[in-house]
Amino acid sequence: MSKYWSELTRGLVPYVPGEQPRVQDLIKLNTNENPYPPSPAVVAALDAFDKQRLRLYPDPNSNVLKQAVADYHGVTQRQVFVGNGSDEVLALAFMAFFKQSRPILFPDISYSFYPVYCSLFQIEYARPPLNPAFEIVLDDYPADNGGVIFPNPNAPTGRVLGLDELRRFLQRNTESAVIVDEAYIDFGGESAVALVNESPNLLVVQTLSKSRSLAGMRVGFAVGSAELIEGLERVKNSFNSYPLDMLAVSAAVAALQDRDYFEQTRQRIIASRDWLQAELQQLGFEVLPSAANFIFARHPRQDAARMFVALRQRKILVRHFNSPRIDQFLRITIGSQEQVEALVTALQDILG
Amino acid sequence: MSKYWSELTRGLVPYVPGEQPRVQDLIKLNTNENPYPPSPAVVAALDAFDKQRLRLYPDPNSNVLKQAVADYHGVTQRQVFVGNGSDEVLALAFMAFFKQSRPILFPDISYSFYPVYCSLFQIEYARPPLNPAFEIVLDDYPADNGGVIFPNPNAPTGRVLGLDELRRFLQRNTESAVIVDEAYIDFGGESAVALVNESPNLLVVQTLSKSRSLAGMRVGFAVGSAELIEGLERVKNSFNSYPLDMLAVSAAVAALQDRDYFEQTRQRIIASRDWLQAELQQLGFEVLPSAANFIFARHPRQDAARMFVALRQRKILVRHFNSPRIDQFLRITIGSQEQVEALVTALQDILG
Repeated sequence: MSKYWSELTRGLVPYVPGEQPRVQDLIKLNTNENPYPPSPAVVAALDAFDKQRLRLYPDPNSNVLKQAVADYHGVTQRQVFVGNGSDEVLALAFMAFFKQSRPILFPDISYSFYPVYCSLFQIEYARPPLNPAFEIVLDDYPADNGGVIFPNPNAPTGRVLGLDELRRFLQRNTESAVIVDEAYIDFGGESAVALVNESPNLLVVQTLSKSRSLAGMRVGFAVGSAELIEGLERVKNSFNSYPLDMLAVSAAVAALQDRDYFEQTRQRIIASRDWLQAELQQLGFEVLPSAANFIFARHPRQDAARMFVALRQRKILVRHFNSPRIDQFLRITIGSQEQVEALVTALQDILG
Repeated sequence: MSKYWSELTRGLVPYVPGEQPRVQDLIKLNTNENPYPPSPAVVAALDAFDKQRLRLYPDPNSNVLKQAVADYHGVTQRQVFVGNGSDEVLALAFMAFFKQSRPILFPDISYSFYPVYCSLFQIEYARPPLNPAFEIVLDDYPADNGGVIFPNPNAPTGRVLGLDELRRFLQRNTESAVIVDEAYIDFGGESAVALVNESPNLLVVQTLSKSRSLAGMRVGFAVGSAELIEGLERVKNSFNSYPLDMLAVSAAVAALQDRDYFEQTRQRIIASRDWLQAELQQLGFEVLPSAANFIFARHPRQDAARMFVALRQRKILVRHFNSPRIDQFLRITIGSQEQVEALVTALQDILG
């Protein structure tokens, strides 16, 4: 603590991202990174970019990227917002829509950055619990709220809600903003972007970090009604005029346009996930149905924290959350087929 | 306006950055960009970077870059904070240090983003006026404040305060954070980084956008006491874990390490500034003494808004602020020698 810190700063409990270890030979299945490199079109775009231009400011609106997102999702450029990773998009959206007199709502088990944003922006919240099968139950979300946010698929459970269920909720919850955080949607769910033209209060947030293999470039975006996007722009332009650098825009546009590579790599990840799920079940794990690029699993006779350590000793890094209800689960990122096979071998060894 | 916007969003008046025109053949002297490209070492680092690695998240702490800043400024890594452009660093610093019960202070004529941050974060402020020579008078800043911020050199005036004056102020103002925003310091002032070890409440903010020709890459940093930096990290880690992408870090490190190129290009800009200042005076302009990569000048017999339009017709873009006290000034970025010569020719033509 320092006497120069604001009250606000003193009260913060910052988010802790998954470890980025310096050791090179670890099998890294802890931060939901894509095991495949970015599209060759991304590499070509970065190599071809004229670096002399970096002396100039970028377009503050990143219109080229907005148009690429609009083309991909079949919406207009005015329905698209872009930011420095989806975490920044979410942070700005909390300011833009959630500083309300009533608490906002998100699941008790969910992305652990949400309560951190609430503390930073002094927003009250309530957390309707997942059901015993670890599903989000939207019927438990009262209409009298200051906003709603949830990941779909949910993190760290991997469970997904269908479009019908989302539509039904949006027809009932029309008076506050609803943010669907689709960081993992490309690995198995249907995007709520399909609903933005019927629900002016719906904001869908996606990232290029996972399904586009661009975690290192920090690009996220939101799709919603023009009125929501305008609100986001007001906040962004009161915070940082140019959050996206020229190379990030260039890489992101190339990634969005290479649909074949995207399709190939995500199908490979989905295939490895299905294989891993079956293998883990063979080993006695309870595996939640996953629509994401990770699996959330527990073993009835093995302590999760102990398995985490045993895997780490075998140079495999997964994620363990020491939180109520989920402290017996491991969250395992879907790596390459070779990596998930190594994981299964290590678990066979650990389980004896 | 939208019913889904927060109260906060409704009240915002966002910052408006200088125009980034699409027309290619303009002489662009409006946003204080560097006329020279980034160091060849930057281009080499970007080209050599293994783009396959972009599938991974970057180091959330950007420690390699922090160390490069620390080496450059002769401080420790714990005294360095890095962000997505100095605007982001400033925004986070407003949250970290300025949410106080007393108003913060900044000059009446200054960087126009400061009041925008105050409105976003609901911080009260007062603005001691510059003196008639457009100088900051720190004796006019009462000690009973919630924080102090000013650019040095000031923008858009270009006038600089010396280290002695800053030290005298810091010896008196010990109870609140003082932020010195040094976006332009490399073009003629002495950096207050020299004072951070004697003043634990001093935060010095710099950018790679201007003197390092990297506006397109969005990298800024702050140097201060470890306790201030820790406060900034708490806020940053409650907002966005990874604001700097891998290529931005790589470019910034290379730029900071190429001291020869930095020295050469800034000296060329300083020489062009001195030449331009003399020429403008010849044309009858009053030119404020500038320690920046721009000049702030007015003509006793020519309306500034009219000159702005006449220059634009001649394909030269400068900046005109329609604000009290300075609406008769033009802010002219120091371009290449060829560009400032073209400007002088155009002004000769306009003035007849």
